[in-house]
Amino acid sequence: MPLVRISVYSSTTNEQRRAIASAVYEAMRETIGIPEGDRFIVLTPHDENELFVDPNFQGMHRTSRYVLVQVFLSRGRTVKQKQNLYARIAARLQEAAQVPADDVMVVLTENSFEDWSFGKGEAQYVLNPPSWVSRSEKGN
Amino acid sequence: MPLVRISVYSSTTNEQRRAIASAVYEAMRETIGIPEGDRFIVLTPHDENELFVDPNFQGMHRTSRYVLVQVFLSRGRTVKQKQNLYARIAARLQEAAQVPADDVMVVLTENSFEDWSFGKGEAQYVLNPPSWVSRSEKGN
Amino acid sequence: MPLVRISVYSSTTNEQRRAIASAVYEAMRETIGIPEGDRFIVLTPHDENELFVDPNFQGMHRTSRYVLVQVFLSRGRTVKQKQNLYARIAARLQEAAQVPADDVMVVLTENSFEDWSFGKGEAQYVLNPPSWVSRSEKGN
Repeated sequence: MPLVRISVYSSTTNEQRRAIASAVYEAMRETIGIPEGDRFIVLTPHDENELFVDPNFQGMHRTSRYVLVQVFLSRGRTVKQKQNLYARIAARLQEAAQVPADDVMVVLTENSFEDWSFGKGEAQYVLNPPSWVSRSEKGN
Repeated sequence: MPLVRISVYSSTTNEQRRAIASAVYEAMRETIGIPEGDRFIVLTPHDENELFVDPNFQGMHRTSRYVLVQVFLSRGRTVKQKQNLYARIAARLQEAAQVPADDVMVVLTENSFEDWSFGKGEAQYVLNPPSWVSRSEKGN
Repeated sequence: MPLVRISVYSSTTNEQRRAIASAVYEAMRETIGIPEGDRFIVLTPHDENELFVDPNFQGMHRTSRYVLVQVFLSRGRTVKQKQNLYARIAARLQEAAQVPADDVMVVLTENSFEDWSFGKGEAQYVLNPPSWVSRSEKGN
């Protein structure tokens, strides 16, 4: 269910791009309870005239290894789960693709369970609400 | 008012890209009541090291014909309208560009009527609230 | 804190791209109270088979100079602030990159202060809520 958009500089290799995508997926599996196979990731490389990043905002030292991870996901995660997600994305990107922790930015945008169609023109989470849909939301 | 972001594999032809964009616009016209000409669509092609899609999640059989359609739109559509939208996007993509229904993924993200400027530095829906703005939202 | 996604036609020069990004950042500084250095902008050029824009919707005369600015930002800005933002983006794009006002489209999408990690795997606005976080939101 999460849709992930990743932006990197063009200097990243194809091997790094695959490693970055996998690392983000594994971090989501570990922290926000997504099922196996829920992996929909769009990565776009940009040159220096397309990706503009402040090198020091919020006390970081950002480099050309910068990775922006924007995650669109259904409402329902706690602040603690989001904090765990940020920590695990940074840790796994360091392990899998040698991305410095200062270079990992994550932004979340939430929607509702009825906002997803995975195929066949159907709203799968309306037909079969997943376990993370709260009782009150199901009652709407 | 919808802003549409479409992601496809690089193997799609220019003719298919134009057909995909038109099909999504027509499906929105049929199901969620957008006016004629409300057509703002950004399509980005990606190679296999940029677009990572699980082939089978939620029981689909996804291929290189995969089309991701992310729609940013104002709040106010019912669950039924959204379901109709998904069904019509899948049907029209099949008709117009031979995209298999299993390959059509749609994700919605909602905002408010004051979140749109179509030009001239103005917020057109604040100055002239459209018919789909509910009475309570107008009262804010 | 805003994440900005800009879409332009491929015919824009690198100099124009840099000017467009800077103009949007300066307009945000002037109108929605972001701190210095809060500059995270992703620009993507598109050819005519990727960027589909109605030339006249809402009474505009759009050209190949069209600039789409999508801003992801935390909730809390008033309608008036948003209107000021649209006006200043249009004015600065005209000044800095000769973009006609009819060619400037802006779309906002809001999230919450806990939805941002600027690096180090931490949620900086949870640890240190910024001044624009309302008392009620802090209490959640």
